[in-house]
Amino acid sequence: MPKFKVAIVGATGYTGSELVRILINHPDIEISAITSESRKGEKFSDVHPQYRDIFEPTLVSINDISDYDLDLVFLALPHGVSMDFVKDNYERNFKIVDLSGDFRLSSRDVYESWYNKDHSYEPGFESAVFGAPELFRKRIAEAKLVANPGCFPTSAILALSPLLKEGLIEKNQITVDSKTGVTGAGIKAKPNTHFPVVNDNFTAYGVKNHRHTIEIQEIISKYADSEASVLFTPHLLPVDRGILSTCYTKPNRIVSTEDLEKIYHDYYDNEPFVRVSKDLPNLKQVRGTNYCDVFVTYDERTNTIITIGVIDNLVKGAAGQAVQNMNIMLGLEETAGLTITPLQP
Amino acid sequence: MPKFKVAIVGATGYTGSELVRILINHPDIEISAITSESRKGEKFSDVHPQYRDIFEPTLVSINDISDYDLDLVFLALPHGVSMDFVKDNYERNFKIVDLSGDFRLSSRDVYESWYNKDHSYEPGFESAVFGAPELFRKRIAEAKLVANPGCFPTSAILALSPLLKEGLIEKNQITVDSKTGVTGAGIKAKPNTHFPVVNDNFTAYGVKNHRHTIEIQEIISKYADSEASVLFTPHLLPVDRGILSTCYTKPNRIVSTEDLEKIYHDYYDNEPFVRVSKDLPNLKQVRGTNYCDVFVTYDERTNTIITIGVIDNLVKGAAGQAVQNMNIMLGLEETAGLTITPLQP
Amino acid sequence: MPKFKVAIVGATGYTGSELVRILINHPDIEISAITSESRKGEKFSDVHPQYRDIFEPTLVSINDISDYDLDLVFLALPHGVSMDFVKDNYERNFKIVDLSGDFRLSSRDVYESWYNKDHSYEPGFESAVFGAPELFRKRIAEAKLVANPGCFPTSAILALSPLLKEGLIEKNQITVDSKTGVTGAGIKAKPNTHFPVVNDNFTAYGVKNHRHTIEIQEIISKYADSEASVLFTPHLLPVDRGILSTCYTKPNRIVSTEDLEKIYHDYYDNEPFVRVSKDLPNLKQVRGTNYCDVFVTYDERTNTIITIGVIDNLVKGAAGQAVQNMNIMLGLEETAGLTITPLQP
Amino acid sequence: MPKFKVAIVGATGYTGSELVRILINHPDIEISAITSESRKGEKFSDVHPQYRDIFEPTLVSINDISDYDLDLVFLALPHGVSMDFVKDNYERNFKIVDLSGDFRLSSRDVYESWYNKDHSYEPGFESAVFGAPELFRKRIAEAKLVANPGCFPTSAILALSPLLKEGLIEKNQITVDSKTGVTGAGIKAKPNTHFPVVNDNFTAYGVKNHRHTIEIQEIISKYADSEASVLFTPHLLPVDRGILSTCYTKPNRIVSTEDLEKIYHDYYDNEPFVRVSKDLPNLKQVRGTNYCDVFVTYDERTNTIITIGVIDNLVKGAAGQAVQNMNIMLGLEETAGLTITPLQP
Repeated sequence: MPKFKVAIVGATGYTGSELVRILINHPDIEISAITSESRKGEKFSDVHPQYRDIFEPTLVSINDISDYDLDLVFLALPHGVSMDFVKDNYERNFKIVDLSGDFRLSSRDVYESWYNKDHSYEPGFESAVFGAPELFRKRIAEAKLVANPGCFPTSAILALSPLLKEGLIEKNQITVDSKTGVTGAGIKAKPNTHFPVVNDNFTAYGVKNHRHTIEIQEIISKYADSEASVLFTPHLLPVDRGILSTCYTKPNRIVSTEDLEKIYHDYYDNEPFVRVSKDLPNLKQVRGTNYCDVFVTYDERTNTIITIGVIDNLVKGAAGQAVQNMNIMLGLEETAGLTITPLQP
Repeated sequence: MPKFKVAIVGATGYTGSELVRILINHPDIEISAITSESRKGEKFSDVHPQYRDIFEPTLVSINDISDYDLDLVFLALPHGVSMDFVKDNYERNFKIVDLSGDFRLSSRDVYESWYNKDHSYEPGFESAVFGAPELFRKRIAEAKLVANPGCFPTSAILALSPLLKEGLIEKNQITVDSKTGVTGAGIKAKPNTHFPVVNDNFTAYGVKNHRHTIEIQEIISKYADSEASVLFTPHLLPVDRGILSTCYTKPNRIVSTEDLEKIYHDYYDNEPFVRVSKDLPNLKQVRGTNYCDVFVTYDERTNTIITIGVIDNLVKGAAGQAVQNMNIMLGLEETAGLTITPLQP
Repeated sequence: MPKFKVAIVGATGYTGSELVRILINHPDIEISAITSESRKGEKFSDVHPQYRDIFEPTLVSINDISDYDLDLVFLALPHGVSMDFVKDNYERNFKIVDLSGDFRLSSRDVYESWYNKDHSYEPGFESAVFGAPELFRKRIAEAKLVANPGCFPTSAILALSPLLKEGLIEKNQITVDSKTGVTGAGIKAKPNTHFPVVNDNFTAYGVKNHRHTIEIQEIISKYADSEASVLFTPHLLPVDRGILSTCYTKPNRIVSTEDLEKIYHDYYDNEPFVRVSKDLPNLKQVRGTNYCDVFVTYDERTNTIITIGVIDNLVKGAAGQAVQNMNIMLGLEETAGLTITPLQP
Repeated sequence: MPKFKVAIVGATGYTGSELVRILINHPDIEISAITSESRKGEKFSDVHPQYRDIFEPTLVSINDISDYDLDLVFLALPHGVSMDFVKDNYERNFKIVDLSGDFRLSSRDVYESWYNKDHSYEPGFESAVFGAPELFRKRIAEAKLVANPGCFPTSAILALSPLLKEGLIEKNQITVDSKTGVTGAGIKAKPNTHFPVVNDNFTAYGVKNHRHTIEIQEIISKYADSEASVLFTPHLLPVDRGILSTCYTKPNRIVSTEDLEKIYHDYYDNEPFVRVSKDLPNLKQVRGTNYCDVFVTYDERTNTIITIGVIDNLVKGAAGQAVQNMNIMLGLEETAGLTITPLQP
């Protein structure tokens, strides 16, 4: 079988690097082009030296993309940049998986109020499918444009969706307390990612107004088919990779931990990348992989359901889920290229 | 002025070591004796080599305590061991600050059900004062026996008590999501504190049944003078020291962030060891010190008050608060020996 | 082609876990059995939870090994235990790759003096081939028993062997200053691997008498065909994986950095797992892989050749090199199963 | 006794912050002024939030320094900036401790060739005294201008100087393999101090040409009164604070570990800030303090003396040693303000 041809637009960040890590071992895919405006003409391995002797193509410009015959393009671009590419290329033959936040929300208005930025391509909100395979697999299969989910939303949505599916919780009382590794802040050094600032330290950030708040809330509402309200608080861990989200919800009927575990198993046992965990999950047991490990329990004393979702923010929270979406969009085996064993420790 | 004489019972753990770190620079205190059963006859600096040339007394047995003329004794012992010392020594002349959990709860029944352990000295529950100076300063001043608060409870109680004092919140909907450094687990190596298990990792533990749950709930209820219900979830950070507790509560009337900040400032501005922080606090800005940094805000969208409390678990969460209590009990300046500048970074 | 059948003896440690991580993605290998005496009857994923849904065979006893028809057995056992297995099984049909130190040295005498332990199977010293493929590939191909190199020796030998091959250095003045991650100390929690002991800390250990000293010295001498003398100092890094060895040697003739780089390229450019690095290499650029990244330079001012070797101690320093040896021993493609991309960051 | 008045020129970096940490607890010192050009008019605690409620003076301009009546000025400025201040202020009444590298070397030529920078004040090389109290205490006492030693040189010089004093080693074969925490790179975020670059990683840098090479070599030569040659290789540790230098030298006569230990004890036992360690020292046992812990041993097998020096790079390697020098220059108790207990863990 001839391989499908893809391009990665945006080579210099972590998601570009992770897409390569996954795709070069994918049995059905060929990377035809990989772009960078700031480093074009250089080798990919000049930007990411770990790829020396492994993957060393020359980086091209985004403007050269039209020279290639492509089946699918990954956009590993910053928020606010993807939209222009989609605008200019939506009519071309290739499908698009956009890893930025540009098409994840419901409308231009919502986008502009949470991102403080004008949006250049309103029709994309209509056509984009939110790329959470466990929730929207069928629509993804038919999509031309997939908005790959944010990292925090992925962990929270997977921890919560069985409860929403069953209509088990008060939808106006959802609290998501999340903790992320530093790669979520991107590959560029900033004052708040300086090693002595992060190491042996811990802090909350983006309290009340992090953009992933609205993404979680909208997707949950859409999936539950009724308005939900989500409080989301992210924190910065002194680790490279991984997100753990602890979610607190109130049941709207009598439940037990056993009931909940059964619901989660029924919901997820056929999913290739969600493992319902009997023990409390940790970041390293999914490191480098596309797994989301989910834990659920009921606290009778306070009448609260506690659910925990754990992912690698760069894989299931970004590049891995993007490849999973690509597999669905191209009719490939959903797990192709993604059978990676966790690097632990 | 002659110095007050104290003993530290239990030299080998982190709290014993931290008591020494603070007390050897205390202007009014002399450490008369320091005990260890497993290492008696050795020098303190053999157990904690960082003290070489600094503090090198020979460790004595707990049985030798009666040979000394003491004003106060610190019990830096494991849970379940302090109670016997108190039982045997309560009638002696010295006052006691117990850093274990043996006398923090309201009764033997509560203790035995949360600690799964028999309690040997029931009268202690009556006589012990819970050593949170910001809440119970007057009673501490008159106490013979002070139960020094747990580390998690210290961070949560200080983050929440202005709200309780004002009767501002629904007391049955208090969620405390806490994150702690590894020293909270003690000085002994265990499988879950093995470096490759903790490093670059993160996990929840003790979900639903951690003993500090009841401690927080009882103290909050006592302070508010009505029954509260607390959900408490601890998590393990890959850091040495520090606790950050993110607390979620529901107001029972209309509030604003400005109101809340004013309430917190009114409540804490005269407190020497609580700083109300305009920015989101982090662990390192209190490292090595007796400070608790507190942050408060109101999220209108979800009608939630978010408060954050940050401490060094070994100082304000243990040895520092114990010395603060000692200062109050002995009529000393409350800040004596505790004016330590954070080690940052 | 039918797959070759292997067994892993010793499931509970890091090397057992890493062998599985590599072998389950190996195209030509089937893991027929995996043993543990302490955990037999349990699932492999009970011991290493990251393998849930990935690899869940039941652990068997070492005594059951004879029930299987095997092509090769990996011994992931502690030093002093492998020797008995080899003694009892040397005549069986399968080949053996021993990851312990039991057969790496030249003789029983040398072993007993450096390991302070009796050796039970002297003939093994004669038959075992030291499993450094870059030095002894041909002998490995014919070996029945391969002694897989130690982690420190792998990094040092690969950093030094081009110099030895060319006879370029004073062999009595070789200093190897090595720094290792904590996984080198094994999976068992010990006082010196307690998180607060290692985190934000650094120390030397085993100064003058670490067992890998003699291993490096003997292999270097053998490869250079004349007596060398090696000073080796290991240090413990607060990282999980990786060894970086900085080696200082004195040239015995006039050299330049350019000469040396050419020598290293000539020596290594056809090696699949050694990359000569133009820049100073770091641990993460080989993390999770079988690569050794090597750097060489000449300091004219002090007339010193500085070479640096970087590996993942659990892969090229243990399980990965063991699989590379297996590939050679079974006549497979040497890189089969080992084309892993570094997990960075 | 009236307090001595000092100013700190340069508030925003780590050394400025550490000078404050030490000086605000110094019994004989008052900080009259603290400057910053980029943040003048702001409070010191706006720059370093850990100082809220502790030390909150308004930052002034360097040009205001002449308004104050000062006994001594600390220059916590980058290399290349201090020289101009010294040039303009050398004739004023105050003494100067310069924490930069501007006056540590022997001459303008040496400076310009290793720092690639013009030097604006040549007379400073003549007048400046190298501020290593253990080597040059008497000259420091009389100095008007002290060049505070670099961090790496401090650790190396203290590890080596007893050997030099005794003339025990071959001076052309000194190898210093050093490992430093990230604060040595300064407070500004740079690509190579981005958390995911440093965390769980390790690398060498500045191989062959780090500026501290010449500083170590010149001081050693001066102290030994004959030309020495030093090879110095720094490495970057994933820790905040601390330097450990492992030094390899060759004895020029027959020695033993016992001899060496005696020499080190004789040399250092009266020094308040150097502890000769029987065990291998680690970074945390000096963290936050002005101690240098030194270890010495002799390896008979390779005829090598191994010495290790451990410091906190921001204290004994910068601000602490600067205060020690100030104490000597002002005729104060040398340990005043510096009796800090290590923060461990």
